Amino acid sequence: MPTISKRGELLPESAIRKLVPYSERAKEMGRKVYHLNIGQPDIKTPQHAIERIRNFNFDLIPYGHSYGNESYRNKLAKYYRDRNLEVDASNILITTGGSEAISFAFMVCFNPGDEVIIPEPFYANYLSFAIACDVVIKPISSSIRNGFQLPSISEFEKLITPKTKGIFICNPNNPTGYVYSYDELLQLQEIVLRHDLYLLADEVYSEFVYDGKTHYSVLGLDQIKNHVVMVDSVSKRFSACGIRIGSLVSKNDRVIKSIAKLAMARLCPPILGQVVAESAVDSPPEYMEEVYKEYLHRRDYFINALNDIEGVFSPMPMGAFYSMVELPIDDSDRFCQWMLEEFEYEGATVMMAPASGFYSSPEKGKNQVRVAYVLNVEDLKAAVTCLKVALSVYPGRR
Amino acid sequence: MPTISKRGELLPESAIRKLVPYSERAKEMGRKVYHLNIGQPDIKTPQHAIERIRNFNFDLIPYGHSYGNESYRNKLAKYYRDRNLEVDASNILITTGGSEAISFAFMVCFNPGDEVIIPEPFYANYLSFAIACDVVIKPISSSIRNGFQLPSISEFEKLITPKTKGIFICNPNNPTGYVYSYDELLQLQEIVLRHDLYLLADEVYSEFVYDGKTHYSVLGLDQIKNHVVMVDSVSKRFSACGIRIGSLVSKNDRVIKSIAKLAMARLCPPILGQVVAESAVDSPPEYMEEVYKEYLHRRDYFINALNDIEGVFSPMPMGAFYSMVELPIDDSDRFCQWMLEEFEYEGATVMMAPASGFYSSPEKGKNQVRVAYVLNVEDLKAAVTCLKVALSVYPGRR
Repeated sequence: MPTISKRGELLPESAIRKLVPYSERAKEMGRKVYHLNIGQPDIKTPQHAIERIRNFNFDLIPYGHSYGNESYRNKLAKYYRDRNLEVDASNILITTGGSEAISFAFMVCFNPGDEVIIPEPFYANYLSFAIACDVVIKPISSSIRNGFQLPSISEFEKLITPKTKGIFICNPNNPTGYVYSYDELLQLQEIVLRHDLYLLADEVYSEFVYDGKTHYSVLGLDQIKNHVVMVDSVSKRFSACGIRIGSLVSKNDRVIKSIAKLAMARLCPPILGQVVAESAVDSPPEYMEEVYKEYLHRRDYFINALNDIEGVFSPMPMGAFYSMVELPIDDSDRFCQWMLEEFEYEGATVMMAPASGFYSSPEKGKNQVRVAYVLNVEDLKAAVTCLKVALSVYPGRR
Repeated sequence: MPTISKRGELLPESAIRKLVPYSERAKEMGRKVYHLNIGQPDIKTPQHAIERIRNFNFDLIPYGHSYGNESYRNKLAKYYRDRNLEVDASNILITTGGSEAISFAFMVCFNPGDEVIIPEPFYANYLSFAIACDVVIKPISSSIRNGFQLPSISEFEKLITPKTKGIFICNPNNPTGYVYSYDELLQLQEIVLRHDLYLLADEVYSEFVYDGKTHYSVLGLDQIKNHVVMVDSVSKRFSACGIRIGSLVSKNDRVIKSIAKLAMARLCPPILGQVVAESAVDSPPEYMEEVYKEYLHRRDYFINALNDIEGVFSPMPMGAFYSMVELPIDDSDRFCQWMLEEFEYEGATVMMAPASGFYSSPEKGKNQVRVAYVLNVEDLKAAVTCLKVALSVYPGRR
């Protein structure tokens, strides 16, 4: 039997995935499972966008343009311009989710063996994309104790080698909820210029920034516009994760031109999803305002309720809809499995994402979990109560 | 400005793509362009599948399962079993088009630098996928003069090096229309066993095999079931190229398990497309019979009409809906551009794919084009007439 490739061997088994059989068994046993483990919003997709697909009139579903439908690219360009970012359609490629945009950026910006620095903890799947593209992630630690703010320039510079070709941030951050300040972006600009690096940014949560803070896009950093590749997606913004529509934005024409060749090879992004996305981007401001208020309400309730449990600590996330939470436990992989396998309270339990999946440094975040506040407040209340009781009886409590 | 990666530099500019500006200009000048250049069927998608999406009742569009919807995987397994292939859902992963299935297979079967032998001419985008995954394609020549039959075992063995890790065929073949005989598959089985290789097969045209011939899937080669990875797609079968739904089938559990990790990283294949695909697979046999008859009718008319033009030669394709055609010209890149830029007959011209895009060996196929018979016979007639006149006046005629 021929062997699997090295990248095939190295691809990580997701920490959440390992828990799925336990979650399924809990459900089979009649337990309700509150899913705090995945950023799967329960909020409605804009109904006019769904109506659009229900009324779409086609006899056949042909290939679309490899760059994405022109009408949608134009609409997205306007969306960015409305946010004071100077972008036109020629800077935008529509991708199959933000995931494809990240893989494309890795392939075109980095050679096999090149290093990219990513503040840790980071979205678990970045590691899989990096392995698939033979790119090496160099994690730079941020700490829960200062809310996961950007490490200092000197910390970055310690990690820079001749192989370093980029820095990759997620802003607002999944899993930490951190939102980078303008000063922090200027620091990144300085490092990027000094070492001639790419600056990649995953900004899919840009609409979710709380407490009067502003989201600054890397696309606004004029001095490094040829270094910047921004990844976006409508999945979370419009509760349309299943349509698989993202985008990649860069003012570096050579990057766009090379990625366009990858885009042509895979023919086109999904047509039906683009119909939904294009219509969703046209949603009245009230849609986003309502969604925003709902997440804010959930965050305020949920994070405060978590911090009210003895021994539990979560920074107040500034954006997105996640938080990293420190629990008084020995090991979050073990705890999360125990919750699903052995625990129930009033017929229910809670599924969370062990932090191990978000750290590439071993042994980090052992007492942390990532939670997503994508459930309604009533369910969040039940989940918090359940977690509180669980922590009081968990044998590995510390 | 940071540099583009080597793979970014190496990605080929598609020969067809280079012609697009000329085709657009021809249209702007009011010319009708007959598109023989792309396998974009004009046949209707099964209407019940489109009705399904029009009646789909959802409030939000969440992520689906990373492996693809279970109901669809089960239906596909039955589809393969109905074709006498022993496959169950656990052997199947749903992908974003056949394209993603190929990239996934390359990443998991091959290490960077590994070599895969592909009979040439081959589908142009294989080269882009290979470059993106740092896999090296070793072309093995097949010849238009014997209808592009599989080269002999000894020819294959001349190409095998310690780096060779697989053979990749397209069956029925795009661009040649060749359908491999059972004997040829047994030859491949022998080489694969002897050198412990993977055998990858793109079988997206399996429903299109003419003249009473049978399509033999690599999945039927029991002796090498752990070596086989089959790539499929509903795009062509159901005229649904834009939904981006393909599949990858293998009985090698380690391959499936590794590819599943890639699948999880990119979250899920498009949900809306899966709804269409699942319904399309349930089409009554009459749908496929009618589509089949239509392509057969087109093929018979078109290939005979081409061969009736002086100096033109096309083998009779046994399957798919393409043919490689030899023309009495100096250079097909030049000729195809000239057709769009300088020629018209009764207000129309023809766009074809220069063969250069389908050969990785330079200078091969210089007097060949690939044509797709995806237009109705009336349009094919007009296109043939147009081509005939063009060849009679083309300055580079040979």
